Parts: sequence; structure tokens; C-alpha cells
Amino acid sequence: MSLLVVGSVAFDTVKTPFGQVDEVLGGSATYFSVAASYFTQVRLVAVVGTDFGEAPRALLKARGIDLTGLEVAPGRTFRWSGEYSVDLNDRTTHATHLNVFETFRPKLRKEDAGARFLFLGNIDPDLQRDVLAQVKPGFSACDTMNFWIEGKSDSVKRLLAGVDGLVINDSEARLLAGETNTVAAARRLMDLGLKFLVVKRGEFGAALFHGPHTFMVPAYPVERPIDPTGAGDSFAGGFMGYLARERRTTGPALRQAMVYGTVLASFCVEDFSLRRLTAITFKSIEARARALRDTMDVNGPTRRG
Amino acid sequence: MSLLVVGSVAFDTVKTPFGQVDEVLGGSATYFSVAASYFTQVRLVAVVGTDFGEAPRALLKARGIDLTGLEVAPGRTFRWSGEYSVDLNDRTTHATHLNVFETFRPKLRKEDAGARFLFLGNIDPDLQRDVLAQVKPGFSACDTMNFWIEGKSDSVKRLLAGVDGLVINDSEARLLAGETNTVAAARRLMDLGLKFLVVKRGEFGAALFHGPHTFMVPAYPVERPIDPTGAGDSFAGGFMGYLARERRTTGPALRQAMVYGTVLASFCVEDFSLRRLTAITFKSIEARARALRDTMDVNGPTRRG
Repeated sequence: MSLLVVGSVAFDTVKTPFGQVDEVLGGSATYFSVAASYFTQVRLVAVVGTDFGEAPRALLKARGIDLTGLEVAPGRTFRWSGEYSVDLNDRTTHATHLNVFETFRPKLRKEDAGARFLFLGNIDPDLQRDVLAQVKPGFSACDTMNFWIEGKSDSVKRLLAGVDGLVINDSEARLLAGETNTVAAARRLMDLGLKFLVVKRGEFGAALFHGPHTFMVPAYPVERPIDPTGAGDSFAGGFMGYLARERRTTGPALRQAMVYGTVLASFCVEDFSLRRLTAITFKSIEARARALRDTMDVNGPTRRG
Repeated sequence: MSLLVVGSVAFDTVKTPFGQVDEVLGGSATYFSVAASYFTQVRLVAVVGTDFGEAPRALLKARGIDLTGLEVAPGRTFRWSGEYSVDLNDRTTHATHLNVFETFRPKLRKEDAGARFLFLGNIDPDLQRDVLAQVKPGFSACDTMNFWIEGKSDSVKRLLAGVDGLVINDSEARLLAGETNTVAAARRLMDLGLKFLVVKRGEFGAALFHGPHTFMVPAYPVERPIDPTGAGDSFAGGFMGYLARERRTTGPALRQAMVYGTVLASFCVEDFSLRRLTAITFKSIEARARALRDTMDVNGPTRRG
């Protein structure tokens, strides 16, 4: 089942205590697409500049990602640069140059309408709603960030009434709900009409709220994380990719999707850019999924499913 | 199976965004004892001053806690006062008056030797080792804090070689191991000779490392936490209390103990001091344990065990 994603493609300059990379491939939709590509056919709708060469394009194509919707606009591709703290839990942004992304208007094709699975990456909520109205997907989820929550709160809330789910960072969930406690924030956001909510907590894992239920997944225990950039987007890609592959969005399917989202995020942080995420196999994903389920198995550790 | 705990009893003055209490019953061994008392007979070894009245004593006795080892020394009981941030994740200590606790030397009775289960609360590691040598328990665990890690690191490490397990905060685990990553820190601490290690992460739950295995338990989703004081000690009490009741310390028993530790901590934070923790029933503990296991059940939420 194909999965449509709309979001950003960027070149990142990143410094962590473990090294530095300059102008490497990044962007929320990029990480999402590569992570999801292990599960399903992904169609990427985004914009790049004329400086977006053959190498990054080949990397995405090698993962079977459909780039027909990757628009090339006159100008430079989105640039981001930032630096992480010693424990990787805090980051400082040094520069954000939106470039061609600033005037991005997602162009959907006729065949995009009716896509079964849609993920609306972190772009202007007005644009997210516009895409949603055009595609009318069977199942949709979105992300957003503090910039839009602070600047276009009403538009974000209208968006939430139209999608099935929201996949968001902990601090942004609390900001959006106006609550200091995550559980209270989740209850309030669910009341906006969501069928499910995923709250991402970095090295502390993620929480799924679906109907009256709560499900918690720990982070996969990575001993030597190198660069957390894109981990949240890889989580979303693994999560949505799994659902698209399974063609089910029931409670148990959402819970399993949380496991696969976590696994893809764990690979992402083990190297800079998409290096590790493009060098794995489905077998290695399944092995980590089993290990992760074992870390959650109160009847473990000897039982094997 | 009785459980011996050595640690502190205090009067706390606490301010949180939800209120303030003055000179209420607190202390690590107090929270531990009350939490553990729902599972097993607890013997409390600690010191209080002559200002420790009948009311706090009656509260502990009502929970069936054996106070024979609660020494009364000339002087005032340990006082602590502090204040929490708006999200309850940070706290500022305003005052610590050790008072009689400063010269506390645990006095063990003949019948304490050979106690099957021992928990060494956060006191001077030299004293912890002294108690351990006297009691020679069947199963032991300890806590410690940054003050001892920074001041008596060698003594702490010698202690760890003698106990079965360590139950410790995330930041202190990383400090003790000299690692910025929790998983790496856990591996290093396990190498000091521990059979198990519990890393407590507050609202993000707790991790158990046992042998080569890892088990993660999320925090029970409390929507309106009031005061986190004592949550970690309540966790340790529920954890050790469960093991003492079960008389088993296998991997699966340690994992279930993590669930009960989490549940006791969740009750603790719902009110100031021991108010909530003394007002629950075993039935309510079991109900939360079932709900918590459900939040970890990747095949949930409909299955009921």
C-alpha cells in the first residue's frame, strides 16, 4: 500500500560531541521516506533547489522512493545547521535558511487523490489542510512544531479535527495543549477529535494514546548514539510505513507500529545523516523489534514469540 | 518474608505549583517502608529526634511496620525543605538540616542478622557496608546519591560489589559510571559485580538491567501529580516489597517488581507526604498494575490477563 508524505528536504550541517558533518542530506520528509521505505512504496512530495544533485536523488531512488512529486524550484535547497549538547538531549540551532522551502506549495497529482495513507510533515498548517482536502486519504497523520503552534494555533487545531492522528514531540504537545503535564496534554489534544496521538520523548521513548487507551514504548537502548537529527521523523516513517504495509490501523496495529517507529529511530541516531538508516536490512529491523518487545515483556526475558 | 530497611526519616517542608506543606513526615526509609508494607512485614532501622511524636509513629504502626529499630536520639529529627518547578521535573533544595541523622550509626539487633531481604537506603556507603556485613542478607539492594558518589566513590564501588542490586536515579547512575549515556552507564555499573540495576527516570519510568537483559517500564500515567517527593523511595519500597512477598528474585520476578514499584510511585505523587500512599488498598495497587501492564502490552489493549 503506497504512502504519501509531504514535508521538507534539506541539507544539514550538524555538530555533536562525536563529530561534525557539513551540508549532508536531511529534512523531515527525507528521514520519514527512507524509514518508511523498508515497509512500503513511498511517494515524496517536497521541494528542492537547483543545487540538489544526482547523489542525494540516487540515494532516495535506491530506497525505491517515488520522486515524481519532488519539485525542483529556482534557488537553493533548505539549509539547517545546529549543534547538540554533550548528552545529545539539547540542541542549538545556528542557522535556518528556508530558501525554496519558504514559498513551497505542495503540487499534488491526480493520482495522489484518494491515497490510502498520508503523512503531513511539519509545514504551514494551512498547507497541510490544503493537501488533506485534495487527497482525502483513508488514513492520515500529521506533525507540527512550536513555530506553527505559536503563530497559527487555530489553523493547527482545525487541522487536528481533520486528520486521524498527530505525531508530535513531548514539549510541543504540552505547548499545543497549554498543559505542563504530558498525560493531561494528551487528554486535551485527544478531545480535539484525534483518533490517536503519538508523543515522542527522544531517549525516553514514545507514548501512544488511542481512544481511552495508553501504550508506552521505551527507546531502543542505543549505547553509542552519534546524532539524533531526524530520529523523530524516522520514528514517524517507521510508524506510518508499518501501518501502510499492514493495511490495518486497529489498536494492536498502532501498538506494533510504535515498536517499528522506535526501531527505525534507533538506527537513525547511530550515525550522521542517513548513513545508518540506508545501510540496514529488514532482517535487522525485525531483530531489533524482537529485542525491543523483549524489553517490554513483563513475563520475559526467556519467552520467545 | 520480612524486609529490613535502613535509611532516613525526616520532616519535610515542600512547595510545589499545587500547594505547600510544612514539617510533614518524609524521609527515604519512611516512603520505602510504607510502600513495601502493602506486600510484606517491614522492619525500619533509622533514627529520629525527641521531637518525633506519637502521630507519625502511629501512622507507621498502622501500616504494620516494625519500629523496634527506630532509635530516638537526643536532638531534632532530620529536616529537609525544597521547592519544585512548574512541571515538577526540577527541584531546588532550600535547606537540609541533618540533625540527629548526622551521627546516625545503624544499630542492628541479633534477629536482624540473616534477614532474607535488605534494602540499604541512601546513607554513608561506609555505614551501608557495615550493615551489609552484619546482616549478611539473602538478597540485598542499595541506593546512593551524588553526595556520596562525589565524596566516597571508592566506598560506593566496594559496596556495589557486595550487594545484589542498585536502585538509583538516572543522573546519579551516569555520574557514578562517568558516562553521559544511560545505557552505557548501566553496562559499566553492571561490570562492578551487580546482579541487577534499576535506573529511575521519574516521569519517564524506569529501566531494569539484569544479566545481559534490559527491561523498561513506563511511569504510570498520572494526570495530576501534586508532589514528587518520595516517589523514587516508594518505587524502591514497592519493588523490594514485591520480591520479599514472592520470595523469588528471578528475572521475571524482578520485572514484575518493576511494575509494582512504578505503581507505588504513582500513588505517592498524587498528594503531599504520605497522604495518598497510606490511603490505598492492595486492590487498588493490583488495578493499577493491570492497567500499567496494559500500557506495555504490544498485543493490547483488548487482551485481559
